[in-house]
Amino acid sequence: MTVEGIKVVDATLRDGGLVNDFYFDDRFVKALYKANIDAGVDYMEFGYRASKKQFSPEKFGRWKFTSDEDVLKAIGTKDPRMKLSIMVDVGRTDYKDDIVPRKDSPIDVFRVATYIDTIPEAVEMIEYISALGYETTCNIMAISKCTDEKISLALYSLAQTPVAAVYVVDSYGALYPKQARKLTKLYHNILAPYGKEVGMHAHNNQQCAFANTLEAKDSGAKWLDGTVFGMGRGAGNCHSEALLGYLNGEKYHVEPILKLVEDWMLPMKEAGTEWGYNTSFMLTGLTNQHPRSAIAATKKKDTNFIEQLRFLSYQ
Amino acid sequence: MTVEGIKVVDATLRDGGLVNDFYFDDRFVKALYKANIDAGVDYMEFGYRASKKQFSPEKFGRWKFTSDEDVLKAIGTKDPRMKLSIMVDVGRTDYKDDIVPRKDSPIDVFRVATYIDTIPEAVEMIEYISALGYETTCNIMAISKCTDEKISLALYSLAQTPVAAVYVVDSYGALYPKQARKLTKLYHNILAPYGKEVGMHAHNNQQCAFANTLEAKDSGAKWLDGTVFGMGRGAGNCHSEALLGYLNGEKYHVEPILKLVEDWMLPMKEAGTEWGYNTSFMLTGLTNQHPRSAIAATKKKDTNFIEQLRFLSYQ
Repeated sequence: MTVEGIKVVDATLRDGGLVNDFYFDDRFVKALYKANIDAGVDYMEFGYRASKKQFSPEKFGRWKFTSDEDVLKAIGTKDPRMKLSIMVDVGRTDYKDDIVPRKDSPIDVFRVATYIDTIPEAVEMIEYISALGYETTCNIMAISKCTDEKISLALYSLAQTPVAAVYVVDSYGALYPKQARKLTKLYHNILAPYGKEVGMHAHNNQQCAFANTLEAKDSGAKWLDGTVFGMGRGAGNCHSEALLGYLNGEKYHVEPILKLVEDWMLPMKEAGTEWGYNTSFMLTGLTNQHPRSAIAATKKKDTNFIEQLRFLSYQ
Repeated sequence: MTVEGIKVVDATLRDGGLVNDFYFDDRFVKALYKANIDAGVDYMEFGYRASKKQFSPEKFGRWKFTSDEDVLKAIGTKDPRMKLSIMVDVGRTDYKDDIVPRKDSPIDVFRVATYIDTIPEAVEMIEYISALGYETTCNIMAISKCTDEKISLALYSLAQTPVAAVYVVDSYGALYPKQARKLTKLYHNILAPYGKEVGMHAHNNQQCAFANTLEAKDSGAKWLDGTVFGMGRGAGNCHSEALLGYLNGEKYHVEPILKLVEDWMLPMKEAGTEWGYNTSFMLTGLTNQHPRSAIAATKKKDTNFIEQLRFLSYQ
């Protein structure tokens, strides 16, 4: 299997942080960093750089506000084999104050997360951050809610920027494999002539996260997100160990991530951190909606799925 | 979405029986029967009709040996809206003794399960059972281990019989969506000229069961297997509630199955019956092998996934 040009991106600290308020054991962060390097992962995302004016550092762990110092403290000397990423949300980051030139930072890429209606703000951020020397991607969230027309306009707009890749972000876990293919091709057809690549960030509400990631790959996506044991909001993400198992070969190795599942992820779930497929998440995926009601249902162990579906059907 | 010609087959008692030795609460069987009818399910499979000479009725529940009387006792008067199925394994059934003519039986279809190397025996069974007036299907197990050449020969052979459909059975949960499409098309291209249809029976080792079932449908498969909450051997099957949610409309209805998940499947799992995705099953799927080692690992809570992968890689 060809893995040429593929970038596997580990988003465990970032999407996983959404289910534990970004409180990770320091030893886990170090173990994840080392395992990702050993596994051949191309990029590791060290959470968000959210605005401390908008979010209280007393309510969240440090990986919601990740500073360059936090990263350096966690990793020691940077290993040149893996690049480092941080996500910034449109409207929720003080990027002009909080990002220094790349030459002074361990970070390689900033991934700009946006909804389709704030693409102009995303473009501004991408221009600014790229000018500081960083790679950038644009991660268009809740893509299953967007029309092809709006998506196309967004992509043509992004094609004019220095962005390296634009992501299909299936925030609601609503996409089926054929839609993952169709969207990836739509992206690819518009972006490729401008030298931009496509990414896939999948959610597992309907147990299609891994399948959709493979379908995106075969349709031309080069940036593939995974999280260890699928750790991420709600039903979670494409499991890194499934993806790396699939890609396993000279470049990628699944074993370091398997070890991490055993040593860290199973105990984390055992201790009560909640993520992963259940019927409530299936229903928000099915009805193409934000998982918030399913997260609430899961938390209070509400298993009245018929009521949940009816509630969602009236949204 | 078109559901024309689609047959949703509930295999909960049959594949699910593999994880509880076919001991089901009678009230569950009745609830499942009623829910399947209300959901618009086309066929419900009442377990196996295994040979009592080969398997001890003292070691297994009745749904391993399902007699017509067992079925009638469970359902009362047969509802004409749903057809009834029983599975018979090549070499493990006394079909000449244990099957009466269809006019004297509540059963509509016998599904003949076989490995690729026993197709001649399967053909013999299909001819015999069809002659008694039943519909038949042929379910070729462990299809991920078979070459296209062997599969094609098997299909041409089956095309000469009265079989209604031939199944892609991904016993090992090894197939990815593109393989599910490819195999379905291979089947379809050979069988369609003979008026035979294609079926998909998926396993969820790599969390592709639902995705593969959808891909098979879009590639021409008409017989789609599901089990409630995915209950089935190892990582289990395509979840009926996901499939019926996807197909939900005039013909199919997801709500009765959601109720069953809440009322029966969650308590069954809670009480210790084990099935569903985990990392051990992912590894047997990845390495395209029988889930038996993963079942053993799951039972003894062995989470040394690296050792498991190494063991599988030497098989």
